[in-house]
This record gives sequence, C-alpha cells and structure tokens, in this order.
Amino acid sequence: MAIILGPNRYGKAETRLVRVTRDGETHHLKDLNVSTSLSGAMEAVHLTGDNTAVLPTDTQKNTVYAFARKHGVDQIEDFALLLARHFTTSQPAVHHARVEIEEYAWDRVPVTGHSFTRRGGEVRTCVVHHDRDGRVSVVSGLKDLVLLNTTGSEFHGYAVDEYTTLPPATDRVLATAVHARWRHAGDTPSYGDSYARVRERLVEAFAGTHSLSLQQTLYAMGERALADCPEICEVRLVLPNRHHVAVDLSPFGLDNDNEVFNAADRPYGLIEGAVLRDDAPGPGFAWE
Amino acid sequence: MAIILGPNRYGKAETRLVRVTRDGETHHLKDLNVSTSLSGAMEAVHLTGDNTAVLPTDTQKNTVYAFARKHGVDQIEDFALLLARHFTTSQPAVHHARVEIEEYAWDRVPVTGHSFTRRGGEVRTCVVHHDRDGRVSVVSGLKDLVLLNTTGSEFHGYAVDEYTTLPPATDRVLATAVHARWRHAGDTPSYGDSYARVRERLVEAFAGTHSLSLQQTLYAMGERALADCPEICEVRLVLPNRHHVAVDLSPFGLDNDNEVFNAADRPYGLIEGAVLRDDAPGPGFAWE
Amino acid sequence: MAIILGPNRYGKAETRLVRVTRDGETHHLKDLNVSTSLSGAMEAVHLTGDNTAVLPTDTQKNTVYAFARKHGVDQIEDFALLLARHFTTSQPAVHHARVEIEEYAWDRVPVTGHSFTRRGGEVRTCVVHHDRDGRVSVVSGLKDLVLLNTTGSEFHGYAVDEYTTLPPATDRVLATAVHARWRHAGDTPSYGDSYARVRERLVEAFAGTHSLSLQQTLYAMGERALADCPEICEVRLVLPNRHHVAVDLSPFGLDNDNEVFNAADRPYGLIEGAVLRDDAPGPGFAWE
Amino acid sequence: MAIILGPNRYGKAETRLVRVTRDGETHHLKDLNVSTSLSGAMEAVHLTGDNTAVLPTDTQKNTVYAFARKHGVDQIEDFALLLARHFTTSQPAVHHARVEIEEYAWDRVPVTGHSFTRRGGEVRTCVVHHDRDGRVSVVSGLKDLVLLNTTGSEFHGYAVDEYTTLPPATDRVLATAVHARWRHAGDTPSYGDSYARVRERLVEAFAGTHSLSLQQTLYAMGERALADCPEICEVRLVLPNRHHVAVDLSPFGLDNDNEVFNAADRPYGLIEGAVLRDDAPGPGFAWE
Repeated sequence: MAIILGPNRYGKAETRLVRVTRDGETHHLKDLNVSTSLSGAMEAVHLTGDNTAVLPTDTQKNTVYAFARKHGVDQIEDFALLLARHFTTSQPAVHHARVEIEEYAWDRVPVTGHSFTRRGGEVRTCVVHHDRDGRVSVVSGLKDLVLLNTTGSEFHGYAVDEYTTLPPATDRVLATAVHARWRHAGDTPSYGDSYARVRERLVEAFAGTHSLSLQQTLYAMGERALADCPEICEVRLVLPNRHHVAVDLSPFGLDNDNEVFNAADRPYGLIEGAVLRDDAPGPGFAWE
Repeated sequence: MAIILGPNRYGKAETRLVRVTRDGETHHLKDLNVSTSLSGAMEAVHLTGDNTAVLPTDTQKNTVYAFARKHGVDQIEDFALLLARHFTTSQPAVHHARVEIEEYAWDRVPVTGHSFTRRGGEVRTCVVHHDRDGRVSVVSGLKDLVLLNTTGSEFHGYAVDEYTTLPPATDRVLATAVHARWRHAGDTPSYGDSYARVRERLVEAFAGTHSLSLQQTLYAMGERALADCPEICEVRLVLPNRHHVAVDLSPFGLDNDNEVFNAADRPYGLIEGAVLRDDAPGPGFAWE
Repeated sequence: MAIILGPNRYGKAETRLVRVTRDGETHHLKDLNVSTSLSGAMEAVHLTGDNTAVLPTDTQKNTVYAFARKHGVDQIEDFALLLARHFTTSQPAVHHARVEIEEYAWDRVPVTGHSFTRRGGEVRTCVVHHDRDGRVSVVSGLKDLVLLNTTGSEFHGYAVDEYTTLPPATDRVLATAVHARWRHAGDTPSYGDSYARVRERLVEAFAGTHSLSLQQTLYAMGERALADCPEICEVRLVLPNRHHVAVDLSPFGLDNDNEVFNAADRPYGLIEGAVLRDDAPGPGFAWE
Repeated sequence: MAIILGPNRYGKAETRLVRVTRDGETHHLKDLNVSTSLSGAMEAVHLTGDNTAVLPTDTQKNTVYAFARKHGVDQIEDFALLLARHFTTSQPAVHHARVEIEEYAWDRVPVTGHSFTRRGGEVRTCVVHHDRDGRVSVVSGLKDLVLLNTTGSEFHGYAVDEYTTLPPATDRVLATAVHARWRHAGDTPSYGDSYARVRERLVEAFAGTHSLSLQQTLYAMGERALADCPEICEVRLVLPNRHHVAVDLSPFGLDNDNEVFNAADRPYGLIEGAVLRDDAPGPGFAWE
C-alpha cells in the first residue's frame, strides 16, 4: 500500500477587479470577482516542495489585472476564456485552467456620466474550463435572485408516514433564492444576450407556473430556458424553499387568510435538480 | 458604595413579518424586520426576578403580527408608531417604547399580479420612540446604498507627518455604502414621499458634488436633503470610504489611467457626521 | 434658519494587525483589528473640502503598524491609549481620538514554538478615548461569548394581555451570546488581569444564577463583576435570548422532558442593561 | 430532441438540533445542524407535480427530532447513518439518502453540572450516503480550523513569466483555515476516536512541516493522517492561503524583520487536493 496524490488544483481566489472605460463624459463600469485555478504536472510541488511547475497565485492575480487593461472586459465568459487560454497555452506544466467570475451589476445615476449605484439583487456568474488540448466548457449562471409568489402554489398528496404532521396546503406562499447554472452547447454568439434571455425565462416560469411542488417549478424553469434558448443544453438549479408560515392569529380572535406570514430562516427545504436535452453532449469537466 | 441598576430595555428583535394584501388579482407585499424594546419600572425583574412588570418578548412578537392583520402595514414609521403607542398606553409599567423596522423592497414581476422579485440594494429603516407622556420621535433612514463616482473626486492638501506615505490624488474613484438616518421635525404628512425625496437628494448630492474629500461629500449630502425636505431637521451619515486602488501595471509595460482598480475590503476609511438646522429642536431620545 | 455641521469624526476602520515577537525558538502572536477615529477642528473640510486639518486615514493606518513595530503590543487597552495620545498630542487640529480594538485569541500548538491555532469563542475588545486636555476613558469588553444552561432557568408570573400566548416555564434552557463592556474607574494596573477576572465573574454568574428571567441573570452578571473587580465602575451588557424551543414530539407518541430542542434563529429576545456603582464618576465620552 | 430530467435530490437543510442528556446533576449537550436529502423515483413530481413519491421535507425534519429523542445522539456519523437508513428502507420511492451534519463543540463551565460555553474554532462535519441496496459511504471532516506558523515557511523557485512580480520568500508566515474531509474505508469502530486522531495528525503535520509551498503542506497533512489512521482511505483538503503581508516600514525609518503583518482578506490563494491510498476502493457516491 502506498499513499498517492489525487486530483488537485490551486489558484488565486476572489481577485476583486473594477474596470472603468470612458466614452467622453460617459463612463462605463464592470465590477468582477475573479477566481483562477490551475492544474497539471504538480506532483513535485506536493511531494517535495519543488515549485518549478508552479505559476504563483500572485502572478495569476497580476494577469487578471493586466488582461483587464489590455483587453478590456465585456462579457465575463469571454474574459474568463481569455484568461484560461492564456494559462494553458503559456505554461507547459499547466494542463488545465478553471476560471470562475462573479459580476455585480450597477445602475447609472443620471446626474452625471460617471455616477453609479450598485443594483443589488442577483449576481451573474460563470465557470469556464480550458485544457491544453483546447477543450473548453462554459457554464453561465446567477445566484441570489429572490422570487416570491403570494399565491398559485399548493402542496398536498404527498407520502405520509408516522412522522408526518404537515397539513396539506391548497394555497401558500412560494419563495426561493434562485441559484442557477446553465451549460452552453457550443459557441454562444453573445453571452450577454443569452444571459438576459435565460434569466427572463427562469423568472417567467417561476411566476407563471401554478405550482404543486417546488420540484415542479424547478423543472418548469429549466424546461422553459432550454426550450427558448437553443445555445444551452443543460440547466442546474438549486432552490431553497424559503418557508413563509401563516401566523396563527386565532388566539387573538383574528383570522389569517394568507395575509400575515413569518418569513422563517432555518430549516428550509432545498430542491436541487438538472434539466437537460436528451442529446446534450457529455459535460466532461464543465461542472467541476 | 452600592451597586445599582442603570439604563435598561428589553424586547423582541428581528420579528420577520411579510404582509400580503389583495386587490382582486393584484397582490401587494410588505417585507419587514421588526424589533421592539420596552423600558420602565423594571427594577424588580432585574434585582429579584419578579416578572410582574414584564410584558414578555413573545407577547411583543404576537402583537406585531396581530397589528399587521388588524391595521395593515403601509409606511413603516406609521406602523412603528402604532406599536410603540400600544405598548406605552396599555402597560402601566412600560414607560417607554422603541420600535425599529427594516423594510426590504420588492419589484413586481409583470407575468402575474402575485409575483415579485426582491430588489436588493438599500434597506429602508426607521426608529421610533414613544413615552407614556406622549413624547414621540421619528428617525427614518436607509443603509447599504452603494454609490460610486468614477471621477470627480480628489484628495490632497492634507496634514503631513512622519507617518505619511499617501500621495496626493487629483482624480480618484470615490465609493461608499451609505448609512443615513434623518430626524423628522414634527408630523410628517407622508413618510413614503419624504423617504423618496430624501433618498433622491442624497444620491444627487453624492453624484453631483465634485469632491475634495469624503467629508465634503457627506456634508453636501446632508445639506441637500435638509434644504429640500423641510419636514426633517437633522441628518446623520456614516460613510465608509471603500477604497478602489488603481493597480500598478508598470511592471508589465502598461499604463493605468484610472482604468483598472482593486476594490479593497479592509481597512476602509469611515466618515461619520451630523448635519442639522441651527434651530432644530433638541433630539431628546431620538437617537437612542 | 441655517444648516450647520453637527458632531463628526473620521478615521481608518479595521486595520488588521498581526504582531509577532520572538523569544528564541518560542514565538508570540497578537492578532488585532484596530479602528481609529479623530475629531476636532474639522469645519473646513466638511464645508469647503479644505483638508489642511485632516490627518489622512491612510496615515492613521501607517501609524498603527509603525507603533506596533516600535512599541510592541501587549494589552490592547495600552496600545489603544498610546495611539490615541499620539494623535491628540501631535496634530493641533485633532482635539479628540477614539481607538477601538478587537483581539482574536490564539492557542499554541505544542509541536513547535511557532505554531498556533485560532481559539474561536469570544473576541476581546476595548474602546479608548483621549482628548487634547488629557482626559481619558477606557472601556474593555468581550463579544460572542456563547453561554448556555440546560436547566436552572424559569420564566413565569409575567404581565398578561390579550396578545399573550406564552405558557409559563418552570424549567427551560437559557442561552445567550454575551456582549459585555465595562468601564474602568481610573488607572487599572493590569488590563490583562482585569480582563481575565471580569470574564470569569460574568461566566460564573451566568452559570451559577438560578434564573427567573434573563434580566435577573444580566444584573447578577454585572453585580458579580463589580463586586469582585474594584478597578471597574460600570458594566453594560447586551444579551440576546437565544430561544431553545422544546420540540413537541407528542404526535409521534414521544414525550420530551427537555431533551430535544430547536435552536431558533429569529426572532430573539434582546435584553440590554447597565449595572454600576452608585458613586461611579460620570462616563463623559466613554460610551461614545 | 426532448428535454429530460437529470440528477436531482431534495430535502430539509439546516435543522438545528440541540440534544440534552442528564446523568444526575451532570448534563450533556450535543449541538447539531442536520441536512437531509432524498432522491429516487421523482419524475412525476418534477413533470406533473404529482407528490405521491415525495416524503415532505417537513417530515424529514420531524424525523430528525424524533430520532434524537428515541435513539439519542452520540457520534454524528452514527446518527446520520441511522437517519439515512430509515429513509431508504421505509419509503419505496426513496432510493438514496444523503445526510450531512455539522457539530458545534461546547465546553463545560465547571460551576454547575449544567452550564456550557461554546468552544468556537473548528466545526466537525460528516456526509453519509445510503442507498436502497445497502451501499453506504461515510465522509468525516472539519472546517474553520485556523492554523498559523510564524516561521518555517518559504516560497521560491517558482515559474516566472512576464506577469511575475512576487519576490522569492525564504521566511514567511503561513496561515490557513483548514477544510478537510476524509473517507472511511469500511466500518470505523469509533468515529469519535477517529476524528480526534485525524484532527491531531492534520494539526501536527501543518505545524511540523517545514514548508516550501502550501501544496507541500497539504500533501503532508493528508499523508500523515492516512499513515496513522488505517480506518480512512482518502483525505480531501481545501486550504486557503491567508496572506500575511509584512508591512513596509522603511518610510518611517523602521525595519520589519517579520514582526508586523497585515492580515489580508482578498484575494487569497486557494489550494485544493486529494491524498489517498493507491488501493483505496472507488469512492462511488461518497463525495456527492
């Protein structure tokens, strides 16, 4: 029996990059959080501390800033691909690069051309892989998109056992914070357009689905995005069920016809699922 | 020498209340976080554990929910006043009530009349005091309003000592997360209108002020709000200076004319200040 | 009517300082988070952006690091006093300095003389004020000290109104996360010894008090600390009541004699109070 | 082309369970955060909202509390296995259960037999899988174990490219927050003993390894645990490199021989790797 090194990667996490561009008096702003990870011929550094193959994480950070200056930043997927390609084509020991980016949206304050307010709400994300053989994967996504329906949701007809106390519900609040990621099938012409389209479909499906369970809503969201966005082939969703519990006001002589709720913190339901095309290519390393 | 009880208060913090109202197919949503605190003749409970004077925090929570059902929730200041008045007028031992509310904004998803997405961005706040003699104070506010100017900010001409290394700046990014509270002078006819007006003035002043220091911007924000909003008499601002450091790209043969920044976490500048009318009435307990 | 500047201060928040000292092979570690705030003749910077009086927050940060090198760091109160004195005596426009420090504890890993593990648990704190007339105040404290009694706590005999539903409890779990601050009466010979003594008294009083309400426990904690620590004259406590709700297991044919609890997040009770000596000097700016 | 459902699971996340047991006057406390996830014949609920196969997440929560009462809680792995086995053997549609538990440690306050203080520091974890064919996997772990060496760490000899600015280091602080998980090879007789042993080996290896890179330290930690703990067959580590940057004090005429550091937040290095026995059985679903 011997002890061996298994899968590994290393990089610089959460390099905070704000990129400003100027169009006369009108400025533009991109606000990113970039994490890079490299892997490859890294046995020596683990076993003996020989760093010959190691491109330092500090250098990875520098590269992020230098590339932002040289190439600008438009769509995060394109910027991630640029970085990943650079690492895998310039360093022989680096066989694989993973680049993850979060983007925070800002709205223009119309008082000047250079004033902005951070939008809040969802964060746009991507994870890109690139290996030295030129294989590439692109996953786009979003997180912290909080959605709520005040009606149009039921939950009943479920399995019952000796630990069941939940009464069936024919009208309840349904709320979640959407964490969604979707895999691109090939070359997507515009990641920005695609993002807007997928996001809109997810929101529409959440809002427009009369829900008998959050699982049904999850599937409807993925299906709608796939049906209308041919450039993507798989959607993975993580949907916490943020329980809104109608407060029992009967001790005070009051009814509560779904008007007053306690928004509970923990525990919460957690529904996870993938929806995909039956002819989707294998994901390879896309979800790693 | 004896040991004595000093100022004290107790209550229920962070009661999460979601209130739904229905206007046919069109639903409305209020999402609040309510904290109540009572004080008064509370020596016995501290010294001997005699709870006769204590209205339990659990009852305070129940009251929040029952009042939401009975009276509905429109402006958070009005709802806070209703609660505070109730506690001070119904419990002889309660001489003073403080009610603090946070409100989270939601936007309508136009697919149905009952679908919403949480807006993110700033949180609206209020703190209301009410004592048994009918004295009242109302402070409104907001927090987590993140603003940024990509130019129009300088910083130079400051005091220099042996620990100075900062070079003067004639063009820098200025960014902050506004925490603002403002005290109402008397009866404000519409807290909702007032909130919108004050918020707009704060944003306009931040964006429109050519800034020689964040202190100057702070004062300009307070001054603008007071100048245009006669219903308020004092503004208190806490403005972190979220440093955006232009990255030195010269080692890579690149210039950086304020295009590429590192958005730093810590440390950060912290500028705190009050701006008020010279004839503002004394604040009393308003800021407690 | 004119608009004027009210109370204000500015500084550098959360300068993270780790100070290592070496005693041969044995190293020592101090891990601090330092926030400095200055105030004084700051009208010009607010009204016109004239920075002449402003010692930049960047310089304040540099001073923290330089003083750590020059003077070392032993007790945080002493280090804070050193900084506050420096700012008020070296800058004519600075009339007042406030220095707040958090200290994170580390334990030695006995494998080497230079290895440590962060202890977790409570954070030690202090807030020191120093004005140009040499007036000084020192408040020490701690936060995030989580304590729990599995029995020895009751709650009944409280005021009842139409919104009461809480049943009286004769045996309940009592849990809190202590936030305590105590004001020193004069020159405390050893802040480290004092801290250890006060902390021990707070814990002992929480554990040893048969509690009829968290208010009673709060007072007992403050009283015990004051009784045994002559160097302090006032204790202020903020005690969230972290509700542990015995789960109703009767639907499953099970009793629950205070054995199975749900540790709830929100809402929570919040008990705040001061305990002091009747001959304590006025606090002045100590609590600001 | 059709759209289909891919892998999915659902459950109740973060059920907070505190379990008290009494041994006369001496009480014992377990403080857990339990998350259960089920999967199986769940097509209908996703595609049509037919909940027949769905054991509600509310019931899963009830089961956690009922089992805590019935069976008590000793080692978290054993409690997780009990729950996972129950779900897969009692519900025909449930083909697979995943149970994740976090445990928060408490220390006894020796004043009474029923008083405790939360220890802080690392959180113990486990993830258990159980399928309806009786296949089982157990992964134990810990997170938030913060370790630091003030010397004994170097970093040089790394790959250099046009974006390199990092100078080589022959003496630096090395700090991390260990996130470790280890897979059990078969039936581990005592998960508690195993946890203590693995934890000790990880700490010892971090402290005792003269480090030429954090990768080398990572491997040494995994190797040490595997060498001394025959019951485990694979260790996966995620080690952020919490950079401690020696502050340049030369502008103030001061040297800094690794005595004064800025503990930086972001970005940070992130080193991830697996260490395993060459004859370790395949992991199956252990890491899912």
